[in-house]
Amino acid sequence: MEIADVARTVMERCDVLAGYSEEHGRLTRRFASHPMKEVNRLVETWMRQAGMATRQDHAGNIIGRYEGQGSSEKVFLLGSHLDTVRDAGKYDGVLGVLVALAGIELLHDRRERLPFALEIIGFADEEGLRYHYPFLGSKALTGSLEKSILYLTDEQGIPLIEAIRHFGGKPEALIFHCSEQKRYDDWLGYCEVHIEQGPVLEAKGLPVGVVTAITGLSRCKLVFEGEANHAGTQPMALRRDALCAAAEFVLAVERYAGTVEGLVATVGQLQVSPGAINVIPGRVSLSLDVRHQVDAIRREADQKLFEEAIQICTRRGIQVAREEMQETPTIPCTPWLMQLLEQAIDQVGGMPCALPSGAGHDAMIMSRCTDIAMLFVRCLGGISHHPAESVCIEDVAQAIRVMERFFLLLKQHVL
Amino acid sequence: MEIADVARTVMERCDVLAGYSEEHGRLTRRFASHPMKEVNRLVETWMRQAGMATRQDHAGNIIGRYEGQGSSEKVFLLGSHLDTVRDAGKYDGVLGVLVALAGIELLHDRRERLPFALEIIGFADEEGLRYHYPFLGSKALTGSLEKSILYLTDEQGIPLIEAIRHFGGKPEALIFHCSEQKRYDDWLGYCEVHIEQGPVLEAKGLPVGVVTAITGLSRCKLVFEGEANHAGTQPMALRRDALCAAAEFVLAVERYAGTVEGLVATVGQLQVSPGAINVIPGRVSLSLDVRHQVDAIRREADQKLFEEAIQICTRRGIQVAREEMQETPTIPCTPWLMQLLEQAIDQVGGMPCALPSGAGHDAMIMSRCTDIAMLFVRCLGGISHHPAESVCIEDVAQAIRVMERFFLLLKQHVL
Repeated sequence: MEIADVARTVMERCDVLAGYSEEHGRLTRRFASHPMKEVNRLVETWMRQAGMATRQDHAGNIIGRYEGQGSSEKVFLLGSHLDTVRDAGKYDGVLGVLVALAGIELLHDRRERLPFALEIIGFADEEGLRYHYPFLGSKALTGSLEKSILYLTDEQGIPLIEAIRHFGGKPEALIFHCSEQKRYDDWLGYCEVHIEQGPVLEAKGLPVGVVTAITGLSRCKLVFEGEANHAGTQPMALRRDALCAAAEFVLAVERYAGTVEGLVATVGQLQVSPGAINVIPGRVSLSLDVRHQVDAIRREADQKLFEEAIQICTRRGIQVAREEMQETPTIPCTPWLMQLLEQAIDQVGGMPCALPSGAGHDAMIMSRCTDIAMLFVRCLGGISHHPAESVCIEDVAQAIRVMERFFLLLKQHVL
Repeated sequence: MEIADVARTVMERCDVLAGYSEEHGRLTRRFASHPMKEVNRLVETWMRQAGMATRQDHAGNIIGRYEGQGSSEKVFLLGSHLDTVRDAGKYDGVLGVLVALAGIELLHDRRERLPFALEIIGFADEEGLRYHYPFLGSKALTGSLEKSILYLTDEQGIPLIEAIRHFGGKPEALIFHCSEQKRYDDWLGYCEVHIEQGPVLEAKGLPVGVVTAITGLSRCKLVFEGEANHAGTQPMALRRDALCAAAEFVLAVERYAGTVEGLVATVGQLQVSPGAINVIPGRVSLSLDVRHQVDAIRREADQKLFEEAIQICTRRGIQVAREEMQETPTIPCTPWLMQLLEQAIDQVGGMPCALPSGAGHDAMIMSRCTDIAMLFVRCLGGISHHPAESVCIEDVAQAIRVMERFFLLLKQHVL
């Protein structure tokens, strides 16, 4: 089996999976959707062809297990997610599952077994598009789902609990799963391959890099309540326009983040209510996503921005409420696994490169239960979450080489 | 029949109709929806009880005809609309239909016929919520629908042509109807009762007022195209965030309108794409509604604001495109009908008061084919298009008195 052929297969499979979408003409694959079901079946087929036993857990994560030699219960985990954002690219998530699978295909082709099992997890929901609850898949796997989330509803009003059942899972099993802490003792670690989603590797001219840490983030929802009124009759001076207050806040976020080195802050969602052409917006809800490698700087930014929202709204006679959605501290990757990845890159003739991850990943959640590492693959222009997302086959081949060598080093490390 | 009883019936009927909604817990009744069908049936029943013959036209307008004496083909038209905005109040539109009906009930109770017929039209779509095409009902009635609009689609992707068929109309008949210009020769005029939707009558302490003109308006859609990218990895300095550009524009609109006496400008709709919490907005589309009694001032504002959008976007590396949606010049009400309304108010002991309408009304469209007048009824705090919309029974009683007297003056005028 030539690496070039295996890499070509990975590229073709990325193309194939991109065809499974909920929307015509663009790629959107949410948790527990019909296309997600088809993708799970397809990935399962490929896993079986690589000599793996497969199962789907109650959260809809598709898992393939490549048994080790002897009777060891130990397992090393690999994977990434199979859901997408709206109007997504072809590689975010999917590439990590398929590169890990390519690595196992190479082992299987040589009839080689490691002294521990390998499992690949295709997580069912990392982006959180459907229920605005990211990392659902890895949280379920690590037993850290809160019971309350079962009653979150999607845009069609379908509660998560129903979506899980419809997808073949038992919601109860997901929630009480967290008592089974002991099984994590068998986990040797978790390694995730992912496109970089940023400009660093491209700027350095390198195909792959080793992640040092996953940047912490704060997410909240802000709701601005003004007064809906007729757009033709309410004089400008008497208006309490929730959208104008929200617009001021959006610009305040942009301004503040622009002044703090390394800080990024984004309003990615904004809904106007009632949302009619001839009605002054009475209510706006928006999302705020704030990230920085230093947790204290991120927290300060988050707080300052909310204070700014309050100032804007006080001046305008608008109410503003804040709802916490997520707070994740910066998660360092595990040194021994980072070292193995760096050695692997070095041994296949590459130049080791360490870089942070500005984006969140399932590895972040997995770090609660096991050691973690991440390998980034260069992507064109640093573009992700967009149809223009692009990786080249040579970089994918290099990632597969690193993966193959990483398995070998892991084996030596564990023995 | 006591006016107080008739007014109480009107208030009760407003309450009843407010129960017919597409959304649980709030009033939203779009064109050709199921609740609209039920409302048409109910209004039809009430019309028949008032001695009227009823029909529903191809646009779903419900029409009641109170025949005149003798063989005159002449008809005086009354009415308003039965659809609502999203999360609407109980009186906008509905009150005008029901006050006109109350006036005819008083005639019917006395077995009185006028030397011409009276028709009440409950327009099926004035707000344009479903197809973002306002005045559909009155445009259909006056034969001024464009053929192309039949293929507009609603949020569920249902084309207007299907919605019309589903509601019992023939779309073809609607479009070719415009050839029947001659029938308008029989129209004596059109009078619409409506809540003021503004603060003037309340400030003057008057229950009703006569509209002088309907303020002209410009409506367009602006689309801002930036670049979607990952919220965690794209540095602030490299972003082309469509929402930040749109936010700057929203504030520019507010600022500009605040400096020109009598000008109102509103961004009532704003959609962010892709609309995910962790993705920088790549595209924003928004609506702009600009109104002023002086057409030249409105047009200048509209143009200046678009120029400002271009400046904002040029600075930010964003594309902006403008799509015209509607332009309506200021429409003066017809002097002889205004005079009759003023006389009627005077004769029932009220103080005549003339005021402009900042909102658009079906009367505007009807003015293309016939003489028009409007009677405004005071509403609490000038609030409309909102659940807090409120009118008092005494003001409704006064409107009914004016309506009754107006019929008498109309009869004298026509004879």
